[in-house]
Amino acid sequence: MAALMRGSRVLFSNLSQRILVARYLSNGDGSSNPIGFIGLGNMGSPMAKNLLDQGYGVVVHDIFPESVDDLRQLGAGVAETPDEVAMKTNKIVTMLPSSPNVIEVYKGIKGLFNSVQDGTLLIDCSTIDPALSKEISEMASEKGATYLDAPVSGGITAAKAGTLTFMVGGKEEGFEQAKDVLMSMGKNVIHTGPNGTGQAAKICNNMLLAVSMIGTAEAMNLGIRLGLDAEMIAKIINSSSGRCWSSEVYNPVPGVLEDVPSSNNYQGGFMTALMTKDLGLAQNASSSTMTATPMGSLAHQIYRIMCNKGYANMDFGSVFKFLRDDK
Amino acid sequence: MAALMRGSRVLFSNLSQRILVARYLSNGDGSSNPIGFIGLGNMGSPMAKNLLDQGYGVVVHDIFPESVDDLRQLGAGVAETPDEVAMKTNKIVTMLPSSPNVIEVYKGIKGLFNSVQDGTLLIDCSTIDPALSKEISEMASEKGATYLDAPVSGGITAAKAGTLTFMVGGKEEGFEQAKDVLMSMGKNVIHTGPNGTGQAAKICNNMLLAVSMIGTAEAMNLGIRLGLDAEMIAKIINSSSGRCWSSEVYNPVPGVLEDVPSSNNYQGGFMTALMTKDLGLAQNASSSTMTATPMGSLAHQIYRIMCNKGYANMDFGSVFKFLRDDK
Amino acid sequence: MAALMRGSRVLFSNLSQRILVARYLSNGDGSSNPIGFIGLGNMGSPMAKNLLDQGYGVVVHDIFPESVDDLRQLGAGVAETPDEVAMKTNKIVTMLPSSPNVIEVYKGIKGLFNSVQDGTLLIDCSTIDPALSKEISEMASEKGATYLDAPVSGGITAAKAGTLTFMVGGKEEGFEQAKDVLMSMGKNVIHTGPNGTGQAAKICNNMLLAVSMIGTAEAMNLGIRLGLDAEMIAKIINSSSGRCWSSEVYNPVPGVLEDVPSSNNYQGGFMTALMTKDLGLAQNASSSTMTATPMGSLAHQIYRIMCNKGYANMDFGSVFKFLRDDK
Amino acid sequence: MAALMRGSRVLFSNLSQRILVARYLSNGDGSSNPIGFIGLGNMGSPMAKNLLDQGYGVVVHDIFPESVDDLRQLGAGVAETPDEVAMKTNKIVTMLPSSPNVIEVYKGIKGLFNSVQDGTLLIDCSTIDPALSKEISEMASEKGATYLDAPVSGGITAAKAGTLTFMVGGKEEGFEQAKDVLMSMGKNVIHTGPNGTGQAAKICNNMLLAVSMIGTAEAMNLGIRLGLDAEMIAKIINSSSGRCWSSEVYNPVPGVLEDVPSSNNYQGGFMTALMTKDLGLAQNASSSTMTATPMGSLAHQIYRIMCNKGYANMDFGSVFKFLRDDK
Repeated sequence: MAALMRGSRVLFSNLSQRILVARYLSNGDGSSNPIGFIGLGNMGSPMAKNLLDQGYGVVVHDIFPESVDDLRQLGAGVAETPDEVAMKTNKIVTMLPSSPNVIEVYKGIKGLFNSVQDGTLLIDCSTIDPALSKEISEMASEKGATYLDAPVSGGITAAKAGTLTFMVGGKEEGFEQAKDVLMSMGKNVIHTGPNGTGQAAKICNNMLLAVSMIGTAEAMNLGIRLGLDAEMIAKIINSSSGRCWSSEVYNPVPGVLEDVPSSNNYQGGFMTALMTKDLGLAQNASSSTMTATPMGSLAHQIYRIMCNKGYANMDFGSVFKFLRDDK
Repeated sequence: MAALMRGSRVLFSNLSQRILVARYLSNGDGSSNPIGFIGLGNMGSPMAKNLLDQGYGVVVHDIFPESVDDLRQLGAGVAETPDEVAMKTNKIVTMLPSSPNVIEVYKGIKGLFNSVQDGTLLIDCSTIDPALSKEISEMASEKGATYLDAPVSGGITAAKAGTLTFMVGGKEEGFEQAKDVLMSMGKNVIHTGPNGTGQAAKICNNMLLAVSMIGTAEAMNLGIRLGLDAEMIAKIINSSSGRCWSSEVYNPVPGVLEDVPSSNNYQGGFMTALMTKDLGLAQNASSSTMTATPMGSLAHQIYRIMCNKGYANMDFGSVFKFLRDDK
Repeated sequence: MAALMRGSRVLFSNLSQRILVARYLSNGDGSSNPIGFIGLGNMGSPMAKNLLDQGYGVVVHDIFPESVDDLRQLGAGVAETPDEVAMKTNKIVTMLPSSPNVIEVYKGIKGLFNSVQDGTLLIDCSTIDPALSKEISEMASEKGATYLDAPVSGGITAAKAGTLTFMVGGKEEGFEQAKDVLMSMGKNVIHTGPNGTGQAAKICNNMLLAVSMIGTAEAMNLGIRLGLDAEMIAKIINSSSGRCWSSEVYNPVPGVLEDVPSSNNYQGGFMTALMTKDLGLAQNASSSTMTATPMGSLAHQIYRIMCNKGYANMDFGSVFKFLRDDK
Repeated sequence: MAALMRGSRVLFSNLSQRILVARYLSNGDGSSNPIGFIGLGNMGSPMAKNLLDQGYGVVVHDIFPESVDDLRQLGAGVAETPDEVAMKTNKIVTMLPSSPNVIEVYKGIKGLFNSVQDGTLLIDCSTIDPALSKEISEMASEKGATYLDAPVSGGITAAKAGTLTFMVGGKEEGFEQAKDVLMSMGKNVIHTGPNGTGQAAKICNNMLLAVSMIGTAEAMNLGIRLGLDAEMIAKIINSSSGRCWSSEVYNPVPGVLEDVPSSNNYQGGFMTALMTKDLGLAQNASSSTMTATPMGSLAHQIYRIMCNKGYANMDFGSVFKFLRDDK
């Protein structure tokens, strides 16, 4: 159904229509409850808009009034606190920058857990420590609610295009209930296992991504220093065993590929600061599970140094620039 | 032509035929000179056999008599020293384990350079320091010979099947002369640029391979420790940005893929000891070109430790076992 | 005064005397309150005994009954819960293995904060995350109590001998109140600054210790491989700029020094598992303060690998054995 | 005797006197041969001057005419080539920047080995690969000469003051012959073992120095970020197990110690570029001896990155600045 609706997205292209349709559309589970949405940042805002576009009623909350106004003008209801969102609906999406925000929104004085209704579905799309996801899922359980950790991959571009991938940890029945809502914001929804495994999948993938990106940057740079043409070394790697996503579709050397951040001065893409945050989560998870991750650990440190040296807001492929530039 | 001949390889399936044909077949350049072949180890031996199979006359040399006997019985001529090979032919392939052997075979007391004929083509398939390749190419030049560095990828399996990839550094005209001979032993021959770039391509690819293999092992292991199913984490990585050759077609976790070394107790494949050697070359090249390769350097150290801990003869995917096993 | 009393420790050598004296002795602040002591492990138990030896009344709690019995027989009072300790006294020492235990003992259902009296002094000798120390100090403040983070260095030997060093973070006046008690268990008490700085000092020192220990092991091993005599390389390093505590007074190479763990098959000393824990805390602190600590991070990973390979219970100098032994 | 002569250095304070005395003074072995000295850079020049000051006759060679002129004006004889030095004397000191220079000076077309006299003593104070030292010592042996590898520690300051430490690898009898000459340039002369061990001692010490310096910088920086005062953290480390030469007498944090490079904007001292070179030698030696040196390897990479980022000419303590500064 989600796919069907996405095909007909043009139908809802003006505001009054969207509101009208929203009133009459069931919210997927037969109820007319709106979807609660907390966290309207770079990712959350386009995700909430996609829900509106798909005909869902949406009640939003964010601590920044401007973010809220934007959605209000598109027809969303507004709540002053997470607490109030929990009173108004029983299906809630959260998309927050980091662990402390999640703690505040769920467990804070005006948090969701103050007023969460029995049977509520909580879908947390934030990328946080898997251990925190587990802890919150247990608290949700005690309150009669179901919590899913559902971090995303794809970045801002995919958030806008509604093509995110969701990695969902939690109970099977919760996953089934969440599917339609998630398919309204993405194109790929994977049930990874029990609570925490959504986070685990996200941080493991990103740790490997960081490792292979830095490895690609080093190999390309060394090849160039040894006299190889950049496109030649990319071609050889991509037809050999060194091939990886970073070398093949996101090559960090300017000019090797078009339409990637490296060919746009490392603007857009996935910021070094965010990669560093994810690598920090991977290190926490490694420590707490007593797992050795030497390459992931070094990748974390390299990106941390880059953050301190002015690369925080560049795409994470800028590690090539960091290693190559004399300055 | 090479491709054509490979199709008709069955024709040469018995010895006398092979010898017969060899006598009458031109050696690709219109001459009836045999191909010299020095270094009949795990790689060199099947490569030389493929040349015989393709109808080339071959004169071999190796310091181990058994290796030589094996080829002699298949119809190859034999030389006692590299020196003697150089007297008998002007197209010579060398496939040697490491830099000191290359120095001995080319520059030693009984080395090729003692007797190399004017116009000789020297094709060195050994994986060695790019700087040494350049040095030897200059000496060859002074003697009126042409030297190509032509290291391979694909391992023993590809050497036997005649499906190696050759990365060839050296002059364009030398490359043209070498092509047919190389296509008789491989399926992919790439001209990478001037002398040394063949080596450079090889070690850059392998450095990235090592980095992404260890990264894959760490990510898979961390995912499993965090409660993910091994196949699930592989599936997610392979459909996301962490995807790499090591995760996709050579996954180091036993049971995730069939017919890879990890599912065969890390037997076969590419030995940890050899990967360690290549990483050492990459570090030398990094030092001499003043290139920072922090991940490549750590990969080198991890594989070195593994060599010391009993993993030297296992496939390099055994880094998963090294990181995972308590003991 | 502490020093005076330590001199006269022989006076209290039998139990009845000790109890008698304890009854009449003031507890340093003029009160007759006993000292509460929670956490009677390898470190806590000898520390509590030293307090008894110095004439203090002590009320102990631990979750293991055997540990409690041991102290009871020496004259200590016993409490069933941390809560009960807080009711019985207003000067409490805690010595717990890790952060979760500290959370339980202070904030748990039967925790200290349930019943802590106004004006209580809480001295936490556990090594935990500096951020947790700060958090607990704030909660203590709200309850009218004063919390000090006071981690120790010196290990079990110093705990038994009463020669520990305490690094104390917290308010000046709290520090002044704690001094006598701490001097009864140690010989060196340093006020490091506000809450959290005691922990910070501990983990920074131990991070550098780990880095220089591994560096020493590598340098000694490389020197030996290059043909140097072990004592010669130690002598040169110790008279040069490579000199460090690990090379000079705790050399990890068996036979270089007497009476160190390396010359006793790495028994005794500071266990690899504990060093690994401290390095994990250092990494958490690095992440949360956005500080790059690449060497500390790699040291953490090396010790983590060693824990997985059977070195957890050996002295941390066994990194020499790990790097050197072929096996 | 060397010590005696140093005490009377004032006697030779003007040029004619020095020349006069030089004519009559025996050169320690009873001969009136001058000392050959090749390599008059920042280190070699003051070393050669100290020999003149001690009354030795000296014959110098360098590829830069200005360096030669300087010494000529102080009374030194001059040779146009290493070859010529070898003809004029049988006791020769070489002090060259790196391995290729040593190869050129010893084995080149106009090199020492062309004309070296039977019984000549060759004292090589360059810091180079131990394997190269061994190789040259073997060639020297074949020519009837004795070669010592005798790298120094102490830097330019000690070279000027005549207080260098020499780590000398080679035969006992060669060492005995070299002692007086070396004591004329230093205060500490250690016989480390057979050829190559002088180099080994030097690079092992410097590898540990680099590791502990970076470790100190990390620990100091982390401590400061966690709220500790810089002098406090230094004090704690220096009275605890983290203590090392870098924390105690060469602290990299500006203001903690006076009269060290860190308190002089990292000017003077031991340049990052030179440390990086020594760490590269340590990595080569690690690779060739199959020794795992993970911390040494990471230290090499960190200093390599620093070289690329503008720290090449600063003292190696500037790693604190590199890690700390946001920029």
